[in-house]
Amino acid sequence: MLTIVVDAMGGDNAPGCVVEGAIEALRESGNRFEILLIGQEQKVLPLLEQHDLSNVNIRFMHAPEAVTMEDIPATAVKTKQESSLVKGLQLCKTKQAHAFVSAGNTGAQMAASLFVLGRIPGVLRPTIYAYFPRIGEGLTNIVDVGANVDCKPEHLVQFAEMLTIYQRYAARIENPTVGLLNIGEEEGKGPEYLKQAYKLLQEAHREDKINFVGNIEGHDILGGKTTIVVCDGLVGNTILKFGESIPHFLSALLKPAMEALVQSGQLDQNAAAMAGKAFKGMFEPFDVEKWGGVPFLGVDGISIVGHGRSSSRAIKNMIYMAEHMVEERVNERIAEVLS
Amino acid sequence: MLTIVVDAMGGDNAPGCVVEGAIEALRESGNRFEILLIGQEQKVLPLLEQHDLSNVNIRFMHAPEAVTMEDIPATAVKTKQESSLVKGLQLCKTKQAHAFVSAGNTGAQMAASLFVLGRIPGVLRPTIYAYFPRIGEGLTNIVDVGANVDCKPEHLVQFAEMLTIYQRYAARIENPTVGLLNIGEEEGKGPEYLKQAYKLLQEAHREDKINFVGNIEGHDILGGKTTIVVCDGLVGNTILKFGESIPHFLSALLKPAMEALVQSGQLDQNAAAMAGKAFKGMFEPFDVEKWGGVPFLGVDGISIVGHGRSSSRAIKNMIYMAEHMVEERVNERIAEVLS
Repeated sequence: MLTIVVDAMGGDNAPGCVVEGAIEALRESGNRFEILLIGQEQKVLPLLEQHDLSNVNIRFMHAPEAVTMEDIPATAVKTKQESSLVKGLQLCKTKQAHAFVSAGNTGAQMAASLFVLGRIPGVLRPTIYAYFPRIGEGLTNIVDVGANVDCKPEHLVQFAEMLTIYQRYAARIENPTVGLLNIGEEEGKGPEYLKQAYKLLQEAHREDKINFVGNIEGHDILGGKTTIVVCDGLVGNTILKFGESIPHFLSALLKPAMEALVQSGQLDQNAAAMAGKAFKGMFEPFDVEKWGGVPFLGVDGISIVGHGRSSSRAIKNMIYMAEHMVEERVNERIAEVLS
Repeated sequence: MLTIVVDAMGGDNAPGCVVEGAIEALRESGNRFEILLIGQEQKVLPLLEQHDLSNVNIRFMHAPEAVTMEDIPATAVKTKQESSLVKGLQLCKTKQAHAFVSAGNTGAQMAASLFVLGRIPGVLRPTIYAYFPRIGEGLTNIVDVGANVDCKPEHLVQFAEMLTIYQRYAARIENPTVGLLNIGEEEGKGPEYLKQAYKLLQEAHREDKINFVGNIEGHDILGGKTTIVVCDGLVGNTILKFGESIPHFLSALLKPAMEALVQSGQLDQNAAAMAGKAFKGMFEPFDVEKWGGVPFLGVDGISIVGHGRSSSRAIKNMIYMAEHMVEERVNERIAEVLS
């Protein structure tokens, strides 16, 4: 049976939400896998005791240390060997578990995953992607969103190849398509490294590793032109953070606009409240909860990285994500294609 | 008296909107300057004849050719020497006019400006910025937005210096502030060229050329942390196009959300229409009209570049922009600071 390690100490709402999410995943799936919850016993056990776990496939393992959001990624790995993060990943490395899930310090998880699990043979640089809403069905993934800056053309191509495999098998997207984010659509646009990446992506397309549609531009992200948008981590990180700031920005603009309508008598109080709700609903596509998190693609093991604000629903979805990655042999397929 | 050349052939709404905007600028300002309208006489003269121009300080000059949106920038300059674009810029070069304004083919205008006017002594690379709305008063300018990719650290510093001068004098912003767009706030973050740019920006800050606040991130753009955001043209261009796609994207989401409320009886038809209007009003800050256009900073002359969709109001504002640049000696100040 599949064993998924869940970091009880990871996230702003840990360990409460993590415990809830883990139990919910097991109940919902009918104990399709086993969960090994890892964390500080004094904090986690009292929460577990609140549940009837007689029919829930969960185990607990004590880890005396915890990595916090304030820990510096590179040092946390070395100074907190007894943390749930490092110990949890080691369980995967030693094949005592199949996957690791955490909503903790993202930088520390990436550093620890790389340090403990290493890279899949053939992978130059592991990468992290992000979700974007789009017009129409489905979603767009942007890769890389900050794990790698100063990307070389061959890195960008591997990001596209790895994410294509993930989307095709784990996310069950029928025909993942790849766009190269650039300043114009025509071939030959942009900086030198993108011109070279364009050629390499064409090659990967000819070898049937990806479905490359060519250069795309900033407006094609929400436009949903491709399921995969490839770019350097600086560009992706900037777009990601810019995108995350939109709901707050628009809310700040909406409030005075609605108040003016109410005060001038053009809109009554109730209708304004109702319309306000509709606006909030519009931002639902920006809600990362439903996806849960992202795998750290390219490390030799499964490490799912969640948002610090992850709810129990997000944790549950991350657990399913881990399950799909194991079942669909995503890492084995990456090794086949990239090595 | 100041002479501003206005390209009657530039823009999707040319020459109609251009003629309107030029006349409106003269009427509103009380003929504070002279406008030299340049374009194809068979198209422009019939429009001018519809107005009583006895008290309007406008002249017309025929240019047999016109650069279109479809023309390839680099070749248009060479093959269309008799266009309003090239002839208009030459009038500035030969000191027969003080500034040039166009809402035509942006790439062609940049190429022609650089070719005809050359660079201000000391300027490594002329640049184009864009406007972004922000929470609170004022605006944010992002530089560069596509004129330069593969930027070197010293290019970024010059962009910040030139835009600081423009904002301080022509846009009359009291204390322009500069942020370096990066993946994190801490010094030492990001790719090598940004680490070096950080140091050079600190130096420029110590020399009182700019007010550098440090690294900023994607969410700080709409957050309005600084009045100037500096980045490579690939990053800026992507953010610009992404930003421009937001209104369309949200409208696509809003429609079904409002319809669902109306159909379920939670909101009546009128209130929905009203709320929809409020919502459209929210995008008003994304409206480039009120700013009009941007100067091509760093060329040895004044060349104001407008959006293809420019209305007469935008044209008028671009003319004022040109006037401010001349009056406030923006290019002379750039030469002083950068050489």
